[in-house]
Amino acid sequence: MLTKQEAADAVRQAKVKTGVTWAQLAEAVGKPLAWTTAALLGQHPMGKDEAATAAALLELGDDAALAFQLQPTRGALDAAVPVDPTIYRLYEVVQVYGPTIKELIHEQCGDGIMSAINFRLDVRRVPDPAGDRVVITLDGKYLPYQW
Amino acid sequence: MLTKQEAADAVRQAKVKTGVTWAQLAEAVGKPLAWTTAALLGQHPMGKDEAATAAALLELGDDAALAFQLQPTRGALDAAVPVDPTIYRLYEVVQVYGPTIKELIHEQCGDGIMSAINFRLDVRRVPDPAGDRVVITLDGKYLPYQW
Amino acid sequence: MLTKQEAADAVRQAKVKTGVTWAQLAEAVGKPLAWTTAALLGQHPMGKDEAATAAALLELGDDAALAFQLQPTRGALDAAVPVDPTIYRLYEVVQVYGPTIKELIHEQCGDGIMSAINFRLDVRRVPDPAGDRVVITLDGKYLPYQW
Amino acid sequence: MLTKQEAADAVRQAKVKTGVTWAQLAEAVGKPLAWTTAALLGQHPMGKDEAATAAALLELGDDAALAFQLQPTRGALDAAVPVDPTIYRLYEVVQVYGPTIKELIHEQCGDGIMSAINFRLDVRRVPDPAGDRVVITLDGKYLPYQW
Amino acid sequence: MLTKQEAADAVRQAKVKTGVTWAQLAEAVGKPLAWTTAALLGQHPMGKDEAATAAALLELGDDAALAFQLQPTRGALDAAVPVDPTIYRLYEVVQVYGPTIKELIHEQCGDGIMSAINFRLDVRRVPDPAGDRVVITLDGKYLPYQW
Amino acid sequence: MLTKQEAADAVRQAKVKTGVTWAQLAEAVGKPLAWTTAALLGQHPMGKDEAATAAALLELGDDAALAFQLQPTRGALDAAVPVDPTIYRLYEVVQVYGPTIKELIHEQCGDGIMSAINFRLDVRRVPDPAGDRVVITLDGKYLPYQW
Amino acid sequence: MLTKQEAADAVRQAKVKTGVTWAQLAEAVGKPLAWTTAALLGQHPMGKDEAATAAALLELGDDAALAFQLQPTRGALDAAVPVDPTIYRLYEVVQVYGPTIKELIHEQCGDGIMSAINFRLDVRRVPDPAGDRVVITLDGKYLPYQW
Amino acid sequence: MLTKQEAADAVRQAKVKTGVTWAQLAEAVGKPLAWTTAALLGQHPMGKDEAATAAALLELGDDAALAFQLQPTRGALDAAVPVDPTIYRLYEVVQVYGPTIKELIHEQCGDGIMSAINFRLDVRRVPDPAGDRVVITLDGKYLPYQW
Amino acid sequence: MLTKQEAADAVRQAKVKTGVTWAQLAEAVGKPLAWTTAALLGQHPMGKDEAATAAALLELGDDAALAFQLQPTRGALDAAVPVDPTIYRLYEVVQVYGPTIKELIHEQCGDGIMSAINFRLDVRRVPDPAGDRVVITLDGKYLPYQW
Amino acid sequence: MLTKQEAADAVRQAKVKTGVTWAQLAEAVGKPLAWTTAALLGQHPMGKDEAATAAALLELGDDAALAFQLQPTRGALDAAVPVDPTIYRLYEVVQVYGPTIKELIHEQCGDGIMSAINFRLDVRRVPDPAGDRVVITLDGKYLPYQW
Repeated sequence: MLTKQEAADAVRQAKVKTGVTWAQLAEAVGKPLAWTTAALLGQHPMGKDEAATAAALLELGDDAALAFQLQPTRGALDAAVPVDPTIYRLYEVVQVYGPTIKELIHEQCGDGIMSAINFRLDVRRVPDPAGDRVVITLDGKYLPYQW
Repeated sequence: MLTKQEAADAVRQAKVKTGVTWAQLAEAVGKPLAWTTAALLGQHPMGKDEAATAAALLELGDDAALAFQLQPTRGALDAAVPVDPTIYRLYEVVQVYGPTIKELIHEQCGDGIMSAINFRLDVRRVPDPAGDRVVITLDGKYLPYQW
Repeated sequence: MLTKQEAADAVRQAKVKTGVTWAQLAEAVGKPLAWTTAALLGQHPMGKDEAATAAALLELGDDAALAFQLQPTRGALDAAVPVDPTIYRLYEVVQVYGPTIKELIHEQCGDGIMSAINFRLDVRRVPDPAGDRVVITLDGKYLPYQW
Repeated sequence: MLTKQEAADAVRQAKVKTGVTWAQLAEAVGKPLAWTTAALLGQHPMGKDEAATAAALLELGDDAALAFQLQPTRGALDAAVPVDPTIYRLYEVVQVYGPTIKELIHEQCGDGIMSAINFRLDVRRVPDPAGDRVVITLDGKYLPYQW
Repeated sequence: MLTKQEAADAVRQAKVKTGVTWAQLAEAVGKPLAWTTAALLGQHPMGKDEAATAAALLELGDDAALAFQLQPTRGALDAAVPVDPTIYRLYEVVQVYGPTIKELIHEQCGDGIMSAINFRLDVRRVPDPAGDRVVITLDGKYLPYQW
Repeated sequence: MLTKQEAADAVRQAKVKTGVTWAQLAEAVGKPLAWTTAALLGQHPMGKDEAATAAALLELGDDAALAFQLQPTRGALDAAVPVDPTIYRLYEVVQVYGPTIKELIHEQCGDGIMSAINFRLDVRRVPDPAGDRVVITLDGKYLPYQW
Repeated sequence: MLTKQEAADAVRQAKVKTGVTWAQLAEAVGKPLAWTTAALLGQHPMGKDEAATAAALLELGDDAALAFQLQPTRGALDAAVPVDPTIYRLYEVVQVYGPTIKELIHEQCGDGIMSAINFRLDVRRVPDPAGDRVVITLDGKYLPYQW
Repeated sequence: MLTKQEAADAVRQAKVKTGVTWAQLAEAVGKPLAWTTAALLGQHPMGKDEAATAAALLELGDDAALAFQLQPTRGALDAAVPVDPTIYRLYEVVQVYGPTIKELIHEQCGDGIMSAINFRLDVRRVPDPAGDRVVITLDGKYLPYQW
Repeated sequence: MLTKQEAADAVRQAKVKTGVTWAQLAEAVGKPLAWTTAALLGQHPMGKDEAATAAALLELGDDAALAFQLQPTRGALDAAVPVDPTIYRLYEVVQVYGPTIKELIHEQCGDGIMSAINFRLDVRRVPDPAGDRVVITLDGKYLPYQW
Repeated sequence: MLTKQEAADAVRQAKVKTGVTWAQLAEAVGKPLAWTTAALLGQHPMGKDEAATAAALLELGDDAALAFQLQPTRGALDAAVPVDPTIYRLYEVVQVYGPTIKELIHEQCGDGIMSAINFRLDVRRVPDPAGDRVVITLDGKYLPYQW
C-alpha cells in the first residue's frame, strides 16, 4: 500500500509519462481545479469514484486509488520556511503583508479570522500587456471570535 | 527620531485615540487601501506629502512623518511561523496549498513565479447568505526563469 | 500608553496588591471566567465598559483600561514549546494524544476541525476521593472542509 | 518485527481495508475509546489479550500484536509545532489560552499542575442547532508542588 | 515592583555584597537548602514570612519580598539547550542516559514517570580520596499511567 | 554488520521475546545495572566477553555482539528537547532546577562542574507509604576550573 | 524512475567514472556553463534534447534523461545554513555584506530588488600575481516595487 | 559611547536628514563604495581620519567617529535566514545555486574556496533595454586546501 | 552594579580609550594571557586583587571590579552557530574535523574526552615566510569514562 | 557505488574487523595522521594511489577506493550543536573561549582570521604526572581582511 505522499510522487511522475494535465484530471473528476490538484498531492481525501477515475487517467494501480481516499495528515512543506522560490513568494507575502491583512480583516469584519477550512482557492493566469499576471484568490468564510 | 517599527506602533495607538480608519487614511493619502495600511505598518516607504497627510490625520508629529519616508527593512513577523490565529491561517494556506499553487502556476505559465514585488493585494468582505466571506486577492506579475 | 502585554503584567501585579481574584473580575465584568482571564492577559479585546470595570477593580489607570480594548496580536508563549510545567502538560497532551484526537474527530464528524475561534474554554477543580482533579473542557464548533 | 510506529501505520491502513472503526476496536478490547485509539497509534502499551483481540479484528499478524505490547517512546508529532490543521488548533489553544489555564489552576488549586499521566481524555461530538460542536475533555489529577 | 527574574538577579548581587550563603538563607527561612535556593532564584513562590526573612537577611527591600511571593512562570534556562558548562553536564546526562533511566523506571515500576512536581532535590559534596564528588539526588514520586 | 543503534533496537525486541530483564543482563555481564543498560542501548563500548555474554542471553547473533564492542557516538535523544514524558521530566528538572544545582555546586565546591564522564548513575524504586518513589542518583567527580 | 536529486547524484558519480567535465556538458548541451551545471544538479528543467544529450555523454539511462526534464522543487542545501566551507563563504557574504548590497541597490535603483528569477550567474577563475581569484557574477533584472 | 550597531542606525538616520549619499561618503573617505558602506554599517573598522571625515559629513559627533573605529563583531542579519526581500534574494541564490558554484570552483581551481576575507564586492546598475539590471560581483582570492 | 556582560562591554570600550592591551592586562594581573582575556570578557571569576588591578589599569570603577569577581554563567556566543567570521572558523573546524579529533583521542587514549575544565588555551602568531600563521593550542586533561 | 559517508562507515567497521589503526593507515598512505583520518572519514578527497592503498589495508573493495577520491561536501556533524561528549567539549571551547581567541588574533595580527583551509591539525597525548593530557593544535594561516 502506498502512503499519501508516495501516491503524490507517483502522480507527479505519471503526469510526465502520460502527459495528462491537472485541468484534465479536474474535469474528469468533476471537481474544481485547485481542489483536485491538492487532493492528488495528498491534502484532501477523495471519494471512491473520484479516486478510481484519477488513477485510471494516470495509469496508476489500485494502491494509488486507495491512497487517494485516505484521510490526510495535512502539511506539504518539508521545512517551516519553504525554500522553493515559487512557494517562497507566498511565504514572503505573509511576512510582508500578514499584519496588513490582519488589520483589514479586523477593520472590515471585527475580531475574527478568514477560515482556512471553509475555504476555496483559485489560481489563474491573467493576460496583461505589461506582462501576464498570476492571480491567486483566497476565499474563506469569516469566523468571528465567539464564546 | 522614530524607527519604522516604533512609528507603526504609534500609528496603531493613534488610530484608537482618533478613531481614524485605514480606509480614511488610504483615501486621504490617495493610494490603495492595502498599500496604505502596509506602508503605515512600516513595509513601504511613503512619499513626503503622503507621509505628512497621514501624520496629520493621525495627529502624529514630524518624527512619525519622517519615519514613514524611510526605506524599510521588510518582514513583519516576530517569528518564522506566526502564532496570531488571523495571520496563522495564511501560513496554513501556504503549508496545505503551497505545492498546489506551484503546480498550477507551472501548468498555466511555465517554469517561473508570481512576483511578490510587482504585486498588489486586496482584502474584501464579501456578503454571503451562508456567512460573509473574506476574499484576499494576491495579484503578481508572472516572472519566467530567464537566463 | 501601555501595550497589551504591559497591561497584562500590570494586571498580575495589581491582583497581588489588591487581592482581587479572576473569579471576582469575571463576575464584575459579567463574562465567563476563562474569557475574562484571557482578555485581561491580553488575548481578547474588551468592550469599553468591561475595560473600565476591570481597571477600577484592579486600581489601575486609564491607560490600562485603554489597553484592554486594543485588538490583540494573539499568542502568549515566549517560545514555540512552553517550559513552565503547568503549561507544558497541555503541550504534552498535544504531543501524546494529538493524533488520537484527530482520528476521533474524523471518525465522529468527518474531515474537518474543532474551531479554536468559535470556541469556549472551561477550567474546573473537581473533588475526587483519590485526589482532586483538574478538568479542562475545550468546546469548539465542528468545521468541515468545504470548498 | 514491526516498530510501534510501523504498527500504527498498519492499523490505519487496516482500518481502511476492513472498515473497522475505533469505536468497534475499543468495544472489542474493552477499554475507553480514546485510550484504545492512542494505544493502537503507539502511545500506550497493550496487554497481551487486548493486543491479540485488536490484531484479529484488524486482520493483522502476530508481529503487529507483539508491537502493540511494546513499551512506547511517547510523542506523536513529527515536529515541535504541528502543521496538520486539525492538530494545530490544539496547539493554538495552548498558545492563546495556556497562561489563562495556568492562572485558573493556580487560583482554584494552588501551585501545581494537571497531571498528564494520571489523566483521561474524551472526545465527543455534541449536537447544536447553530452547528454541531467538538467537545474535548482533559481530565487529570491535580498535583501540588510538594517537597 | 520587581519581576521574579529581577528579584533573582538582586539576590545574586546581594549575596556578593553581604556574603550571606544559600545555607544561611535556608536555615533562616527554615526550608530545605535546594528549595530555598530555587525559590530565591524565582522557581517557587515563598510564604510571606519566608520572603520577609530572606529579604531582610539579604538587605533587600519590600519589592523583593513581594516578588518572592509571586507565582512563578517556571523555566530558568535562556535557551532550549544550556551552554553554561556546569548546567550543560546535567543536559548531557539526559542526552546520554535518558533512555537508560526510562528503561529502568519501566522495569522497576511499570509504565509511568518520576514526578518532577512531587519531587525533592539534594546536592551534596562527598569527600573521596580519588577526588571529592558531587552527588545530586533526584527524588520524585512514581506516577503510573492511569486512565 | 549492525550499527550500535540497530543493535540497541534488537536488544529491546529480544528482551520482549526472551523475557530477559536488565537486572539479569547486568548480573550476567558482571557490571552495574545502569551501566549495562546504557551500554546495551549503545552509549558505552563493551568488552568482548561482556558482549558475547549479553548477546547469548538475548539470543542475538555475532553481529550484535560485535556492535556492542564498537566505540559509540553518544547522545540518545532524537531531538534537542525530549518529548517522551518519562524522559522529559529529567529535562524539566534541568530547566527548573539547573541554576539551583549550579549555585549549590559553586557554594560547596568552588568554580567547577560535576563530571559527566567520571560519573556513575543509579535508579532505584524506594517504597513510601504515600506512594513509592523513584530516586535517581547522579554521582560525578568534582572538577574545578584549572588553568 | 529517478527523482531529480537521485539523478543529480548519478551525474556526480558518472562524471567521476567518465571524466566528463561541466564545461564539456555545457558545450554539448549548448547552454551556459552555470545553467547546465545547475540543471544537472536538479535546479532547472531541461528540454528533451538537452536531457538526452547530457545523459548520453554521461553514459546514463533513460530514467536519468527523464528526471532531467522534470519540474524541480528548488533549494539545494540540506540545512538553512550551509556547513560545507566552499558554500558557507557565500552565506558569510550575505551575513556580512547583505545590508550593504541592499543599501546600494536602493541608492542606485530605488525601492526594489535584484531578481533571482530573471537572473544569470557566472563563475570564473581570474589569474592574479598575488594568487588567482574566483570571481562570481550575480546578474539579475532590477524589479521595482510596483503596486 | 555608541555601539557599532547604534552608530550604524545613526548613520542611516543622518543620511536621511542630510541627504548625503553612500557614493559621496565613499568619495570623501577615499575608499571603494561597497567597503565604505559596509564599514559605516558596522562591518569593518575605519581608520581615525576616515572615521572623522565620515562623521563630519554626516553631522554626527565624536562618539560616532569613535564607534566607526572599533573592531566589529561581524554578521548583520537578525536571523539565520533573512526576511527582507532584497536581502533574501541573495540567500535564494545560495540555496538554488550554491552547489553549482561549488562544483565550478572545484572544476576550475581544485579543492578549495573563494575567500570571503581577501575579498572585494561591487554592486552596479547596468542599463538594459529589457529593463535595467543589478550586477553584483563577488571577487575573492582562491584558497586551496593545504595541509 | 554591572552585570558581567556589561562589564565586558565596558572593558572593550576602555581598551579603546586607554590603549591598554590584553598583554599588558595579563602582565599586570599576573595570569596567563588567554585566561586574563577570558576573565575580563566575563568567562572566569577574578580574585579581588586581580579585579582591582585590572579595573585600575582600565580606569574603570568599583562596580566593574566587583563584576569581575562574580561567578559567571559561561557561554559567550549570541547564537548556537557563531556568525562572526573569526569565530566561525573555529566552529568550522569542529564541523569538519570534530569526528577526526574524536577518533584520534579514542585511538591514543581510549574511551574518554579532553577536559574543557582542567584546560588551558594559548593563541600565538607564528612567523612563516609563506605568510604568518595563527596557532591555537587546546590543552586539556584526558578524562576516561569511569563508572 | 558508495557515497563518501557510506565509505566512512565502512572504514569504521573495517578497522574493527581488521584491527588496523589510523596511525598505520597514515603511514601506509604517507600523509599526516589527522589528514588521513579526516580523508577516510569523508572530509578530504584522496589521490588514486592513496585511496587504493587505504582500501587494500582495510580489505575494502573498489567502490570504497573510488569513494575516497570523490570531492566531499564537508561537514561531519548530524546537528548544529554536537551531542557526543568528546566532540561537544570542542564546541564548549568555542562557546566559552571563542571571543577570547578573536580578541587575541586581532591584538596580535590585526583585523583578520585564522584560515580553516590553509590549515593543519594535530592531536597528541602528552604524558603528565597529574594525569595525561590531550593537546590539540589548530594551525592556520593568518588572513587579513583585504579589499
